[in-house]
Amino acid sequence: MENFIDIAKRAKKASVKAQGLSAEVKNRGLVAVAKALEEHKTEIFEANKADLEFAKELVEKGELSQATYKRLILDENKMRDMIQGIYDISKLDDPVNKTLLKRELDDGLILQKVSCPIGVLGIIFEARPDVISQISALAIKSSNAVILKGGKESKNTNKTILEIINSALSGVNEFPEGLLNQVYSREDVAEMLKADKYIDLIIPRGGNKLVKFIKENTNIAVLGHADGVCHIFVDETADLELAKRVVLDAKTQYPSACNTVETLLINKEFKQSEELLNAIKNAGVELIFTPESWHKEYSDLKLAVKYVDGVDDAIEHINEYGSGHTESIITENEENAQKFMNLVDSAGVYHNVSTRFADGFRYGFGAEVGISTNKTHARGPVGIDGLVIYKYKLIGNGQIVNDYAKGLKQFHHRDI
Amino acid sequence: MENFIDIAKRAKKASVKAQGLSAEVKNRGLVAVAKALEEHKTEIFEANKADLEFAKELVEKGELSQATYKRLILDENKMRDMIQGIYDISKLDDPVNKTLLKRELDDGLILQKVSCPIGVLGIIFEARPDVISQISALAIKSSNAVILKGGKESKNTNKTILEIINSALSGVNEFPEGLLNQVYSREDVAEMLKADKYIDLIIPRGGNKLVKFIKENTNIAVLGHADGVCHIFVDETADLELAKRVVLDAKTQYPSACNTVETLLINKEFKQSEELLNAIKNAGVELIFTPESWHKEYSDLKLAVKYVDGVDDAIEHINEYGSGHTESIITENEENAQKFMNLVDSAGVYHNVSTRFADGFRYGFGAEVGISTNKTHARGPVGIDGLVIYKYKLIGNGQIVNDYAKGLKQFHHRDI
Repeated sequence: MENFIDIAKRAKKASVKAQGLSAEVKNRGLVAVAKALEEHKTEIFEANKADLEFAKELVEKGELSQATYKRLILDENKMRDMIQGIYDISKLDDPVNKTLLKRELDDGLILQKVSCPIGVLGIIFEARPDVISQISALAIKSSNAVILKGGKESKNTNKTILEIINSALSGVNEFPEGLLNQVYSREDVAEMLKADKYIDLIIPRGGNKLVKFIKENTNIAVLGHADGVCHIFVDETADLELAKRVVLDAKTQYPSACNTVETLLINKEFKQSEELLNAIKNAGVELIFTPESWHKEYSDLKLAVKYVDGVDDAIEHINEYGSGHTESIITENEENAQKFMNLVDSAGVYHNVSTRFADGFRYGFGAEVGISTNKTHARGPVGIDGLVIYKYKLIGNGQIVNDYAKGLKQFHHRDI
Repeated sequence: MENFIDIAKRAKKASVKAQGLSAEVKNRGLVAVAKALEEHKTEIFEANKADLEFAKELVEKGELSQATYKRLILDENKMRDMIQGIYDISKLDDPVNKTLLKRELDDGLILQKVSCPIGVLGIIFEARPDVISQISALAIKSSNAVILKGGKESKNTNKTILEIINSALSGVNEFPEGLLNQVYSREDVAEMLKADKYIDLIIPRGGNKLVKFIKENTNIAVLGHADGVCHIFVDETADLELAKRVVLDAKTQYPSACNTVETLLINKEFKQSEELLNAIKNAGVELIFTPESWHKEYSDLKLAVKYVDGVDDAIEHINEYGSGHTESIITENEENAQKFMNLVDSAGVYHNVSTRFADGFRYGFGAEVGISTNKTHARGPVGIDGLVIYKYKLIGNGQIVNDYAKGLKQFHHRDI
């Protein structure tokens, strides 16, 4: 088995070469990958069957949840979505080589800010084998190298899928070897978290234990979210029917999602709170009124409820107990809505809509890298733009700083 | 003495309130600060004198370098620049509340991506007391809270300056208390590095030992650069006079700057390398030809020199030994220049100009937060835009995800 640092070094080299790939070549690679997955799907289903047999034993021994087992299953439908997802990514604009700024600093001295890939991404994910093809496609499109580490339960499926992808890419001219890599052991994860010389960004996709562990054990930048403690604040002037509709959607439409509401804050002056709470209970949701519930992510049909004094109190509660993910105010008072959206310090601040809208596809980003509760780089649902950064190109004909320091020349800083 | 966590909590609260400050109020605050510093400059000079006396003893005991001592001195000229810097920042566009994207997801469902402050910045800096006023002004302008920790050598000066600033702000309506804070001890730094619940970004300004220590000891995002190992590659077709001029400027104009060239790579086929090297030596620069020199930042009149096989070899060397700061190619070959600028993985990639141009003021950013060799968030010279992130506002009238999941409604994603 190759050791991690060798893989990382090769990925770093490949990432440099990938910066030179044209949009046309990258899209050609994506189409080749999609076709190869279609052609070789029987192999993938076989590999998945082997994983499922092993996983079934784990479920029987109580070492794996039924929910995780279900997420491992790769059927015709998921395969079709996986392949369609790659075609969709091939149709996105090239995120690389966009001119973000062009400025003449002085005659013949031109500064350009140009988007470019981040470099090498470390992706750590659980169970779902469709992550492999999605992340590979995003990496190809954004000219980044990746090192993937999936859950051990889907090892065969993951391995087979990446081999098919890499074999397809090797048939497309110019693609550097070592762009897409996979590692399998816990030791590899430990090495990845230390490899800040080679890895530029780590994206964990999985439960909050995984994400927390990673954030606490690396000084490489991490893109993602550990918790999703989302709030809805029902203000004094809320429309009851609208509030019912939104809260029920936010809690029951998909309770295990990270953008599900976990705490309902109700303005003490709201006259119809009993009707609202009854409607929620009748939908099978358990209501919890203890302070211990305020920072909990239930991911289940449970909802913390707290009465607050008004919009200021709601804002304070959310900024103290929330996770900075997504919060919504239900109100007919425009001023309170503005205040809430300005002062709640979360990636998503909504007015009269369900928190469940926090999602890259719903925002129209085409493909989603993940949802970030970071305060730097990228926040909220992150599209492929979150996988690029920029560099400054400066082109001149012998200019030196001394001429400007001495006052012989002056900058004129004209955007062009 | 207040403990660090209490200061951090207060800063976090102040940062939320600061999100509500209008551009007009912030600029009024900045003008008040500039005027107060002008009015109280005698106090500041007195405090600085006390610091200098203490520092002089340290210099005599050999515990402080003469260079650091010089940087401590606050004279009329520096004070004038400090105050002018604040007026300049007051004239910049408000970086907060810019609409970066406005999209109708469906009828009556409007998504807005709006710039907003990062939150609480931890600033750790050495010696130079003018950092206090500059960072305070940038924080006010960008609606961020800060916790500053300066070098102990300038403690009196730093304390006096921040007290004057805070006193000026307290006279301007709406400014939250606790926006600008200062701590003084090493223990405070240790606490800051652990306080990821309160601090959103750490910006170290100082030597590479300081920056390295911080990067290795926190999992909070860090903006900055440890090393500045910049390269110039003189290609086969370089113009000799242009090469001399650029290399001499890059090495001798200000040798201790981070954007000074440290390694000169010369194409073996370049016929006039002897003349070039002689010109550099005649300017008092020591040339070093050993591999040990390839990753060194001399910050002095010393230059590592290596012959390479061509542009590919130069790119490989830089990506292996460089620090991702700034590199320049001297060539008349347009194709090589393009290749170099595309494949060198650094914040600044230049053609026929001095590396010394890597600077926020020279790029026309108005004010500089620092120079970043990060691969996420902000790269290269960072202006005030590096102190903001964004949030998503979603405004509707009762929309729920279930309608879209069931196909009863469709997104139309139209930018408006």
